[in-house]
Amino acid sequence: MTDTSAAHARAAARVHGTVRIVGAGLLGSSIGHALSGLGVDVALADSSPAQLRLAVDYGAGRVAREDDSPSLVVVAVPPDVTADVIERELAAHPDAVVTDVASVKLEPLRTLRERGVDIARYIGSHPLAGRERGGAIAARADIFVGRPWVVCRDGETSAADLALVEGLALDLGAMPLEMTPEDHDRSVALISHVPQLVASLLAGRFVDAPDGSLRLAGQGVRDTTRIAASAPELWVQILGANAAPVVDVLDALAGDLSDVADALREPDAPGARRAVADTIRRGNQGVERLPGKHGQNRRFEPVVVMVDDRPGQLGRLFGDLGALDVNVEDFRMEHSPGALFGLAEISVVPGAVQRAIDGLTARGWKIASTND
Amino acid sequence: MTDTSAAHARAAARVHGTVRIVGAGLLGSSIGHALSGLGVDVALADSSPAQLRLAVDYGAGRVAREDDSPSLVVVAVPPDVTADVIERELAAHPDAVVTDVASVKLEPLRTLRERGVDIARYIGSHPLAGRERGGAIAARADIFVGRPWVVCRDGETSAADLALVEGLALDLGAMPLEMTPEDHDRSVALISHVPQLVASLLAGRFVDAPDGSLRLAGQGVRDTTRIAASAPELWVQILGANAAPVVDVLDALAGDLSDVADALREPDAPGARRAVADTIRRGNQGVERLPGKHGQNRRFEPVVVMVDDRPGQLGRLFGDLGALDVNVEDFRMEHSPGALFGLAEISVVPGAVQRAIDGLTARGWKIASTND
Repeated sequence: MTDTSAAHARAAARVHGTVRIVGAGLLGSSIGHALSGLGVDVALADSSPAQLRLAVDYGAGRVAREDDSPSLVVVAVPPDVTADVIERELAAHPDAVVTDVASVKLEPLRTLRERGVDIARYIGSHPLAGRERGGAIAARADIFVGRPWVVCRDGETSAADLALVEGLALDLGAMPLEMTPEDHDRSVALISHVPQLVASLLAGRFVDAPDGSLRLAGQGVRDTTRIAASAPELWVQILGANAAPVVDVLDALAGDLSDVADALREPDAPGARRAVADTIRRGNQGVERLPGKHGQNRRFEPVVVMVDDRPGQLGRLFGDLGALDVNVEDFRMEHSPGALFGLAEISVVPGAVQRAIDGLTARGWKIASTND
Repeated sequence: MTDTSAAHARAAARVHGTVRIVGAGLLGSSIGHALSGLGVDVALADSSPAQLRLAVDYGAGRVAREDDSPSLVVVAVPPDVTADVIERELAAHPDAVVTDVASVKLEPLRTLRERGVDIARYIGSHPLAGRERGGAIAARADIFVGRPWVVCRDGETSAADLALVEGLALDLGAMPLEMTPEDHDRSVALISHVPQLVASLLAGRFVDAPDGSLRLAGQGVRDTTRIAASAPELWVQILGANAAPVVDVLDALAGDLSDVADALREPDAPGARRAVADTIRRGNQGVERLPGKHGQNRRFEPVVVMVDDRPGQLGRLFGDLGALDVNVEDFRMEHSPGALFGLAEISVVPGAVQRAIDGLTARGWKIASTND
């Protein structure tokens, strides 16, 4: 950690001059914190004086002035007003590059074009970062570190302007990825918006289920529905602004779903078992393609240890793993309903499994198993 | 841990006499290990001599003999042959109670009734436990500890016979739950079989997606699709044997899915935003009903810490948390693609959040944020 962040802190900021941030919520204030930490002059604006004062008090930057002449304007307002603010900022700051951080990229661009706005100095972008809570108080300089930051250039974009926006992403520790607005919106529909809806729809089926049924829930269904706990307000805006790509994925998914349902309606019909097996097999292939740790698709072996439910127990476990020179690639606590302890599932590289099991057993740990 | 397992080990076995286990795979061998550990005479049988030899070599019990007169027979064979083996064992051991551990309960019962088998001595059961790998080698005595174990009695079931099967569950550290076969099959369809299909179908959509889209994946979609990595073979049997209840849930889910897709087709139509918001809100309510730690629906606050990717770092983190007397309610590693470190998300009770943040910061840890 120290290495990474130290190097990051030592690096000179790639953005220069004054950066104006419109919208002092979670993303705007977090960008302000990170840039201020790099010594950049950050001018904050927000339609809510209270939100603005909070962001300034927490160190996200200073209050913007009439006579500021920013080199870069970052629009970090809710999706439904993003286009309006971009248009206003382009007009108010004729020498500035204007970018936004909205999680949908085509709709604001389309609106600006319809209004005949000259968008030569506008470059849309989207940092794939966030928090379960919003607002200036929840802001942190670190939320962009190691995350992808999509940048949408078009034919009119100058190399210097693009470098400034990509420099912003790099200054915040993110990884700039160039994409067209169309590709971005299709990608987040598939990888973020539809998974949210699927988790919500599945969890919605539990609302009227008997308690007895829910008592049988294991870690598998808890993982599958975890993000169903997301707050509705923002998602209604995001899904509404990216409706067409989301509907495309939903329709394809509905087709796959009805195919496997039809196969199960006649489980003994020829090809039925094959169709069900193919559904599970395609899922195997698809999940394999998701980038795991370090963006790779590495496979790890689980080692499951029974841990008492007391402070310090996990500390002892990880201390022993460190002493055994076993690196933990992934980790999850499995909670056994009604039990007074948890099952700690540790993922390690295959070569380290035996060393972990033998070493932990020698140190008095009970090796258990997963309950999926 | 020690307390729990010691108490468990000290307890005298509730099952008595010889327990015959037919099928020395993961579940059969694991039951054998647990009962042998309690000093019970375990007689193992398996159609595969190699599997049987492995189970005996690993300490799951002894090879069954012709002259065994078991008090309890546990049928732990694949779903598609469960009914045949139950029928055979009822005939071969007229004084024994016969149970099975198949993950579907109505189909074997229906088959036995159709054949006119006297099922007075048969009690179906289902321990909700398993592992990602099967076979006698993967077997462990601990996989049932703290897990629900469904027991299906019917009118003919005698109290003594029921006590024997529930005693088996208790001897293995599981929690017996009485359910009808119909309720059991409907419950696992909702809480296990459909979530598996949903995760597989969603992940299946990633097979043909461009690499660039998948690079935007975060922890949310990884959780939603994690169980899509499950092996097809067993799932084809389970889904085929529980087809009707699974189809009922799939059809209801398909209806919900097409409703929200229709709302998004006309995102500006009256009621559209309301329909989308209700989908997310129902998901909030449903996920809230899933039993969390200790079977309760407790809410925890996340504290996210940046950890270097080196052995011992998590040990240091959990050691510090223990020193701060902060109990870790839940934990997950968040892997930032391309980053050289991970984000450790720790869930603690709300009252402990500030103590954790202040104490960890004082010890030099960088508090980050979640990326969902």
